[in-house]
Amino acid sequence: MHSLQCRRVIPFGKLSLSLHAPRNALRFVHKPAFTFESYKSLHRDPKYAKLSEQDVQVFKSIIGKDGSLIDGLDKSTDPADLDAFNIDWMNKYRGKTQLALKPKTTQQVSEILKYCNQKKLAVVPQGGNTGLVGGSVPVFDEIVLNLGLMNQIHTFDEISGVITLDSGVILENADNFLAEKGYMFPLDLGAKGSCQVGGCAATAAGGLRLLRYGSLHGSILGMEAVLPDGTILDNLVTLRKDNTGLDIKQLFIGSEGYLGVITKLSVICPKRPSSTNVAFFGVPSYENVLKAFSETRSHLTEILSAFELMDNTSQTLVDKYSGTQRPLEDEHPFYVLVETQGSNKEHDEQKITALVEDLLEKEIISDGVLAQDESQLRVLWERREGITECLAKAGSGVYKYDVSLPLPVLYDLVNDTKKRLIEFNLLDDTPEHPVIDVVGFGHMGDGNLHLNIAVRQFDKRVEKCLEPWVYEWVSRHRGSISAEHGLGLLKKPFVGYSKSKEMIHLMKTLKNVFDPNGIMLPYKYV
Amino acid sequence: MHSLQCRRVIPFGKLSLSLHAPRNALRFVHKPAFTFESYKSLHRDPKYAKLSEQDVQVFKSIIGKDGSLIDGLDKSTDPADLDAFNIDWMNKYRGKTQLALKPKTTQQVSEILKYCNQKKLAVVPQGGNTGLVGGSVPVFDEIVLNLGLMNQIHTFDEISGVITLDSGVILENADNFLAEKGYMFPLDLGAKGSCQVGGCAATAAGGLRLLRYGSLHGSILGMEAVLPDGTILDNLVTLRKDNTGLDIKQLFIGSEGYLGVITKLSVICPKRPSSTNVAFFGVPSYENVLKAFSETRSHLTEILSAFELMDNTSQTLVDKYSGTQRPLEDEHPFYVLVETQGSNKEHDEQKITALVEDLLEKEIISDGVLAQDESQLRVLWERREGITECLAKAGSGVYKYDVSLPLPVLYDLVNDTKKRLIEFNLLDDTPEHPVIDVVGFGHMGDGNLHLNIAVRQFDKRVEKCLEPWVYEWVSRHRGSISAEHGLGLLKKPFVGYSKSKEMIHLMKTLKNVFDPNGIMLPYKYV
Repeated sequence: MHSLQCRRVIPFGKLSLSLHAPRNALRFVHKPAFTFESYKSLHRDPKYAKLSEQDVQVFKSIIGKDGSLIDGLDKSTDPADLDAFNIDWMNKYRGKTQLALKPKTTQQVSEILKYCNQKKLAVVPQGGNTGLVGGSVPVFDEIVLNLGLMNQIHTFDEISGVITLDSGVILENADNFLAEKGYMFPLDLGAKGSCQVGGCAATAAGGLRLLRYGSLHGSILGMEAVLPDGTILDNLVTLRKDNTGLDIKQLFIGSEGYLGVITKLSVICPKRPSSTNVAFFGVPSYENVLKAFSETRSHLTEILSAFELMDNTSQTLVDKYSGTQRPLEDEHPFYVLVETQGSNKEHDEQKITALVEDLLEKEIISDGVLAQDESQLRVLWERREGITECLAKAGSGVYKYDVSLPLPVLYDLVNDTKKRLIEFNLLDDTPEHPVIDVVGFGHMGDGNLHLNIAVRQFDKRVEKCLEPWVYEWVSRHRGSISAEHGLGLLKKPFVGYSKSKEMIHLMKTLKNVFDPNGIMLPYKYV
Repeated sequence: MHSLQCRRVIPFGKLSLSLHAPRNALRFVHKPAFTFESYKSLHRDPKYAKLSEQDVQVFKSIIGKDGSLIDGLDKSTDPADLDAFNIDWMNKYRGKTQLALKPKTTQQVSEILKYCNQKKLAVVPQGGNTGLVGGSVPVFDEIVLNLGLMNQIHTFDEISGVITLDSGVILENADNFLAEKGYMFPLDLGAKGSCQVGGCAATAAGGLRLLRYGSLHGSILGMEAVLPDGTILDNLVTLRKDNTGLDIKQLFIGSEGYLGVITKLSVICPKRPSSTNVAFFGVPSYENVLKAFSETRSHLTEILSAFELMDNTSQTLVDKYSGTQRPLEDEHPFYVLVETQGSNKEHDEQKITALVEDLLEKEIISDGVLAQDESQLRVLWERREGITECLAKAGSGVYKYDVSLPLPVLYDLVNDTKKRLIEFNLLDDTPEHPVIDVVGFGHMGDGNLHLNIAVRQFDKRVEKCLEPWVYEWVSRHRGSISAEHGLGLLKKPFVGYSKSKEMIHLMKTLKNVFDPNGIMLPYKYV
């Protein structure tokens, strides 16, 4: 009986899903090299002024007692106090700012930017500093404008589900607040305990359940933002429909701080589902993964909240480094995690059980289990979310690509990358080969693949073999070279693989309109 | 027994829901006055060139045999042939173009705009010409660029549900195509038989089920557009996640043709639901309507597709002029139509029945029926969709306002408007009073109210009493003066009630970047 098989109880204990260390726990025992040392081609643009003690006095007068300020020019300041603002959470990028500003109000942000604009002081806005492309830390001595103290939830309408809140509210805090009201934030991601809603908006974060709750371009209803010249753009409406002129707030979503600083948001939130189910499948081929996705969408239409792909290589790593047991007995070339979120437990269970039975009957999947309780559900998710951590343990480094591709060719990139590394004699089991293995997983429901290459040690030959080859491959298949991680510093040189020269030209023209002095986010983005 | 009551069979026949006459049936027996005659303050801007025969020759050579062209300068052209391009579907606005161009390809659009830009010939882009604010017809002699011949569906990915299609595809054709594949277009509106997907994107159309399927800002994944200087912006990706630079396509959504011409779209489409249910409630107060909405969202979370409000005045009009019978026996101050769309008929029926029982038990609603079949379902929808037609029959004119408001105050606008018209001695049952009645209805789930004032005859006193008072009222309550109809010509003067002067200034600055000669959409928008 299929239904018995798919309801097998999983004997694992409860695992923590917290993948990102809380920010304030970091003390940076081993600091990375300065970014400008690793990226030799970067040079400080002399058009930017150097911070003076007089500037600091002005900022002190703006921020007053409300906010806070870490002044590296002051000899009594412990230089380590600026590390949390200079170094990113991966401990990979390191800037050299002498000043971190933590304003408390939009008015202060406005006055700060106005002054920086007049004096040509460069600025990098910073949210939770959980980015993966070096966008949120300075490259040289840019002033850090950290939104962490702007963390108030202002209004919530229990009927419409619209919340109005400061940019600096931690995503998890917003979601916990909403949970008490029976609602949820329409975005979830691994870094939710540290990342801020303003940063999520500025990076157009997609996360785990975009498939279900859609893009922030749809769920952000209103925004307050400050332009580099200090102008406050107040468009903080709480309306779902407002066709009165150009929707300028949309440009800020995904702009990474290039155009200005987002200070407040209003967001439409869905009702919190009362029932969550998770199934985990073993699938014999990528072709069948595609079929399974199609069937899953048909069966689960309105309750499908995640469809996650993992290849066998990724699961072998999780076996080895997580100490957990596989949910399925045999090995399969591919694994899929399907999640439902709905309002009626019984209905949802019926739907997902029917799906599993159908997939088994049609031999689209080879095996499957359904989580029976919250703890099993977390264990199944850990098989997906634990991959990143286990990859880090496998060697001494990982080359990571976060790409979007049309579904039919999505996994071909993993196969082709592996073939290429073998051809170049870079991948094998023996220690003289730098590459351990190539892993593919991701939010398949969103066409989002994480291509990860685990290496014994970082090696220029590997980098040369991969770049720009990966980007060219993605571009040839009309994919995106950055699905959700954004451009930041890391991907600025490669944007041409995803955007035409006309588009890039227009982006730069718009930059000049919003920020003629170019004080925001120098050296990054496009 | 409540459940018996709410399952009462409705004895109506099937009604047509087609509210908009198909465009090509119009012959304009009675043409409206020219717009520039009705709007005395408008003057043709002398910066625009006048069309010459030489220009027409150039356009002929661009369009060749693919597209079509109606040349009013040619004496052999029947002037009536240009009416369909000069006059809007409401027969309210009338321009005086001498040239309508119907290109077939993006390249042709590019060459046309490039030429117009060089020669400073003004252009109005036109889709299905179903707008309500006079946006899609010329004011003076602007050249009409009609997208009707660019009507190809290019690709459809059955796994991801992403469709790529020309701007000029009729919405209903796109939806019918998708229906055969088990998908649906994520937008539905009354004009679906005539409106084009490009026009929907350009006006950020919301329609009947925004509540469920979200905004076009979320579902449009890619776009090809042509700038006024002829530059083709190719951003026609089919990816859900693509964080590679400023999301410029978002600016075009809702831009009404102000920045350029949308030529192609890629759109992510949901699976077509297999089950639709409709319930119709009588509600004793607006306070209870709010409660009913909250309960409905809790019960129907993921399957709720519409929550429509109608006041008793609107239903009395439908009784009188549609010849149909009320679905509920008694009169109630308010009526609500709730629709679900889902993948499992039995589950959906259980959920909506449980909702109705709960609402009756808690005395939130006074009465309710559930449609038992497709024909009853259409009859219930007709009680909502028939309002506009019946209003038109009630007198000789209707003042229409399409606004968004925070839900708690939404219906107060109707009450306050009525009070004001009575105070001004303009509303009464007797023929010497111009106003027959004030009606409120709309997509309440989206905070969208249609405030309609039916009049025996148009009267300057009524207009003076309503404007700018209505806009001031909406602005005071942080609403939108145009929820979904857009700005066009009609609402251009009022945009300041919904957008700050800083926002409007920035819109105009952006206009100058995209269209320095201002050839697109003159006299309109902002």
